Amino acid sequence: MVTTRHLPIEEIAGQDATRPQREALCRVVAELAAQGWCQGTGGNFSVTLEREPVRLLITRSGVHKRYLGPGDLMLVGSGGRPVAGETVKPSAEAALHSRIVGTTGAGSVLHVHSVPNTLLGEHFVGKGGFALRGYEMLKGLEGITTHEAEVFVPVLRNSQDMDALSEEVAALLATRPGLRGFLLAGHGLYAWGDSLAQAHRHVEIFEFLFECAARRTRFAPFEG
Amino acid sequence: MVTTRHLPIEEIAGQDATRPQREALCRVVAELAAQGWCQGTGGNFSVTLEREPVRLLITRSGVHKRYLGPGDLMLVGSGGRPVAGETVKPSAEAALHSRIVGTTGAGSVLHVHSVPNTLLGEHFVGKGGFALRGYEMLKGLEGITTHEAEVFVPVLRNSQDMDALSEEVAALLATRPGLRGFLLAGHGLYAWGDSLAQAHRHVEIFEFLFECAARRTRFAPFEG
Amino acid sequence: MVTTRHLPIEEIAGQDATRPQREALCRVVAELAAQGWCQGTGGNFSVTLEREPVRLLITRSGVHKRYLGPGDLMLVGSGGRPVAGETVKPSAEAALHSRIVGTTGAGSVLHVHSVPNTLLGEHFVGKGGFALRGYEMLKGLEGITTHEAEVFVPVLRNSQDMDALSEEVAALLATRPGLRGFLLAGHGLYAWGDSLAQAHRHVEIFEFLFECAARRTRFAPFEG
Amino acid sequence: MVTTRHLPIEEIAGQDATRPQREALCRVVAELAAQGWCQGTGGNFSVTLEREPVRLLITRSGVHKRYLGPGDLMLVGSGGRPVAGETVKPSAEAALHSRIVGTTGAGSVLHVHSVPNTLLGEHFVGKGGFALRGYEMLKGLEGITTHEAEVFVPVLRNSQDMDALSEEVAALLATRPGLRGFLLAGHGLYAWGDSLAQAHRHVEIFEFLFECAARRTRFAPFEG
Repeated sequence: MVTTRHLPIEEIAGQDATRPQREALCRVVAELAAQGWCQGTGGNFSVTLEREPVRLLITRSGVHKRYLGPGDLMLVGSGGRPVAGETVKPSAEAALHSRIVGTTGAGSVLHVHSVPNTLLGEHFVGKGGFALRGYEMLKGLEGITTHEAEVFVPVLRNSQDMDALSEEVAALLATRPGLRGFLLAGHGLYAWGDSLAQAHRHVEIFEFLFECAARRTRFAPFEG
Repeated sequence: MVTTRHLPIEEIAGQDATRPQREALCRVVAELAAQGWCQGTGGNFSVTLEREPVRLLITRSGVHKRYLGPGDLMLVGSGGRPVAGETVKPSAEAALHSRIVGTTGAGSVLHVHSVPNTLLGEHFVGKGGFALRGYEMLKGLEGITTHEAEVFVPVLRNSQDMDALSEEVAALLATRPGLRGFLLAGHGLYAWGDSLAQAHRHVEIFEFLFECAARRTRFAPFEG
Repeated sequence: MVTTRHLPIEEIAGQDATRPQREALCRVVAELAAQGWCQGTGGNFSVTLEREPVRLLITRSGVHKRYLGPGDLMLVGSGGRPVAGETVKPSAEAALHSRIVGTTGAGSVLHVHSVPNTLLGEHFVGKGGFALRGYEMLKGLEGITTHEAEVFVPVLRNSQDMDALSEEVAALLATRPGLRGFLLAGHGLYAWGDSLAQAHRHVEIFEFLFECAARRTRFAPFEG
Repeated sequence: MVTTRHLPIEEIAGQDATRPQREALCRVVAELAAQGWCQGTGGNFSVTLEREPVRLLITRSGVHKRYLGPGDLMLVGSGGRPVAGETVKPSAEAALHSRIVGTTGAGSVLHVHSVPNTLLGEHFVGKGGFALRGYEMLKGLEGITTHEAEVFVPVLRNSQDMDALSEEVAALLATRPGLRGFLLAGHGLYAWGDSLAQAHRHVEIFEFLFECAARRTRFAPFEG
């Protein structure tokens, strides 16, 4: 992880200083895409370069994530705003990434769409979330040491107002310090970890357990 | 995109002028096949070379799409008829591709078979279609900017009479100018976009949402 | 296709004369394995070298099909018996392959296990089979030209007595000359075609439609 | 990393003596990961080097199995304890591997997490297990020669107390000498075989049949 406080413009404009992180993130996104979790232009992914102030490498807007390359990533700061020198648009949800990193100190934030996470979010939004318990896989989440733990997965109502959503996410994170992921109803999972590798493991664990839960859920019938 | 009006016989007979588009289409079809959406000889795919008159590169008849190569594509014009010089048969459904391009100006038309799209088409044909709403993935469809939009997916009754089906499709497109896809019952999805890349994204988004809807649908029991 | 009547011992023992067919069959089996249809040591596959008398290249016993190589195939004749010079055991079901080829003149017989075909066979064995109708994919089966056709998929009761099973299959084929596949209950699909490529397409089409049917079937509850 | 103290230098000082087994195990784990059975850091895998006393090559703790390399394996002995010289931690469940090998003489023990095995274990733990019968795939399990056999799959209650769990597993193995696998409720499958290849086949067969059973099981509704 690059930890310099002040990145000269030329190091932001050029990609060389961040090349290892760019390549690492692209490899992880390729894995997530192979799982079917980045269909269409869905999903957005970031790696934290700096926490104070927040500085992230994040996927730019409108790229099909299966074809993501190191040049498709850009630098954003607090509020998800592009740093000086960046000429492309970041993912619409960059503000959420910045807020999560700013509040939790996460090393990476990964947002994926899967059929189970979409259905479960839609189904449980009225209840504000659902709890997973009794699964050994829960121990893969940092901080969980037994299958007898209960992990609550909050579900927030989706919104196109990113600022409002950021505030809601910040409030959620303040009340749940051990949280590693939440759902936006009908929109997907946001998961994070201390590092890119840990965030990636967290996504896989959540998605595995979501599929288990989804196969047991009586979803409201779709009637067209 | 090649935009010449009159292609000399030698440029039709040889493939060189259209090589980039052929290779691009083959790469996309390989991705669709990897998703399981071209099983058997199912599926047909086109890229628009010219809109006025309509001139398309399209998959020829009877090829297993997983093995599609640039030489398996051919040129057709209006009505899906092979241009002068072509010696092989185009996909049976070339007329539908030509009609969609002629009416919408699409840059690419992609037709896939998936288990969810087959089941949903069969199930909702009586109602003429179904609506998808509340899903963030809908924003991946060109023209949709919020998950609160409602996207109607028309379902037409299948037919072996391609001319009649073309007319029905033309009528449908005339009444729904923002349409990006429809289903033929028990037959699959036709989706398109301004470009090959956009059409590909549209297929992925539709198929993702079809799987969500299918997992919530009480299909009529199969009793043999 | 090699059509010599009398293969000298040295041409049987060496593999050179049949190398192209061996490699083609291995490529197809690799595709079937990639679909998850050859789990464990499940599945057996043959290519017809000669029809009169029957002479087939077939997978030998006990090989994990995902790792199948040209050397894992052997020559068998009528009744599935190894030809002179072969030292390994053929698949237990070689007799079925020989019987199907002898009766239908098929160019290739492919036997796969899938979750849908296993469940459907188990479910419909009491009724002797089930019918698929209304699916466009049915047109991928040789001889079917419209989705309005009805294709009956016979289900035979499984047995470890290969001779008895061969007789039953022969009787079935005699009564249904257009047949391209049948199920053995709890055991899987046998499908064939005039060529290896056609047999492969038939397997894909049957399996696609089995998944459609399975998602609509109310299977008897599993109670342990 | 191997860094031995007391054991024949040529056998362990470098990794060379165990290189073939390390590479073989990594290839199998890559296959299991490709099936989605090692999500997160789930799963642990061993190959038996010696049975008396027990000496195993086993995955070390905390590695994402999709990226497993030969250097991520370590030597453990009886009780799953690292042999002298090993500096890293073995999988938490190494004690179970050692106990299974010590009791059955297995050549390899493979532990995977799948959605079906997780759901079935959770569902049938109260009954202590479930029986699979009538499936031809059962013949892929060593010792089973007919689809009419009945194979009981024991389900043990999960626990974080590895010593207690080892004793329970030993008791189970003592009462069921033909056993090739069991489930830990909500935790996954332990399967083994005389060799790595046989253990791998057993995992595939169990998982295939678990998916068949799971699609017929009325799981308790998930209500959040």
